[in-house]
Amino acid sequence: MSGATVEIPPRSGDAFRMAKGDSLTVIDPRGRQVADLLAFNADDLDEVISSGRTLDYAETIRLTKGHKLYSNRSRVMLEIIEDTVGMHDFLLTPCSVDTFDHFYPDLPRHRGCFGNLAAALEPYGVVPDRIPVAFNCFMNVPIDGATGKLEVLPPLSGPGDHIRFVAHMDLVIGLTACSAPASNGGSFKPIEYRVEQA
Amino acid sequence: MSGATVEIPPRSGDAFRMAKGDSLTVIDPRGRQVADLLAFNADDLDEVISSGRTLDYAETIRLTKGHKLYSNRSRVMLEIIEDTVGMHDFLLTPCSVDTFDHFYPDLPRHRGCFGNLAAALEPYGVVPDRIPVAFNCFMNVPIDGATGKLEVLPPLSGPGDHIRFVAHMDLVIGLTACSAPASNGGSFKPIEYRVEQA
Repeated sequence: MSGATVEIPPRSGDAFRMAKGDSLTVIDPRGRQVADLLAFNADDLDEVISSGRTLDYAETIRLTKGHKLYSNRSRVMLEIIEDTVGMHDFLLTPCSVDTFDHFYPDLPRHRGCFGNLAAALEPYGVVPDRIPVAFNCFMNVPIDGATGKLEVLPPLSGPGDHIRFVAHMDLVIGLTACSAPASNGGSFKPIEYRVEQA
Repeated sequence: MSGATVEIPPRSGDAFRMAKGDSLTVIDPRGRQVADLLAFNADDLDEVISSGRTLDYAETIRLTKGHKLYSNRSRVMLEIIEDTVGMHDFLLTPCSVDTFDHFYPDLPRHRGCFGNLAAALEPYGVVPDRIPVAFNCFMNVPIDGATGKLEVLPPLSGPGDHIRFVAHMDLVIGLTACSAPASNGGSFKPIEYRVEQA
């Protein structure tokens, strides 16, 4: 499957393995869409991507080319090697039934990225309680430095923008095309990805 | 033990239960010290405090009186009912052997808040891989809104400053007197806490 581009339909998710050295390109084909990304050590699912470790080592919340994404055991899982957008979020957990109830009480309920990730990762042995803060590709969450307030704004990504990672260990990846209106400017669009061998 | 004030010695940690309705007061007796706080559902340790859920619902990283701390299942675990400081961190994971190697390569290694929390929580059945981003009482981590850069500065807390929480469910709590030089202005001091029944 090296090099094949896979589409994740709107408001859904996928999961797959990638080997150490493989690259993963996440593409926003139409622009202004978000993809929540999770990573687990394929040989030990208790090792999982950690926002807190990553932000601590990076000393910034604005992660882009050259930054490494760390696990809860302080080991590098993924490294960002290309980034045509430069604005992603690593503060917020995937949207869920509960966040839909909270933010969109007048809209039909949806299981959200959380439910989509849980369903996609279940065959790999990941249970829902192990879903942490995701690396939210293209998600635009500026913070007001003076007040601490955060906003969820439409992504800055245009059609074809992408972010590319290289795996530093064998991984199970979860990835979504986001389901929450606020994070993608009110519309639901697909996401594409491509895994390429080293 | 209602009302008894307990001291956590410098660079150490403690764990204890509190019942729904109990309050927990975390006190900085000498000023400019940090206390990492974790919370687990006492009846089901797979339910754990979640920075991502909390920040999403609060729409701010500056949590203070009136804000609720949520679990990974979107339920309220703790609510802040008093706060004499107004500056705490909920972005970073507890310092550890690995963070000491990273940030303080010339200092003696220390197991840090992570190791202290793991040791204190072990009798309650919490394993190290389940330690998430902590609510870091008094930790001063400003973010530059324009660049995203974060800094770890000395706390704004003075002697006797405190933060008080009420429990919304039966909890196992982990709490430290922080071990990392940067987070407390370069010195190591105790933390005090008090649990009071409703």
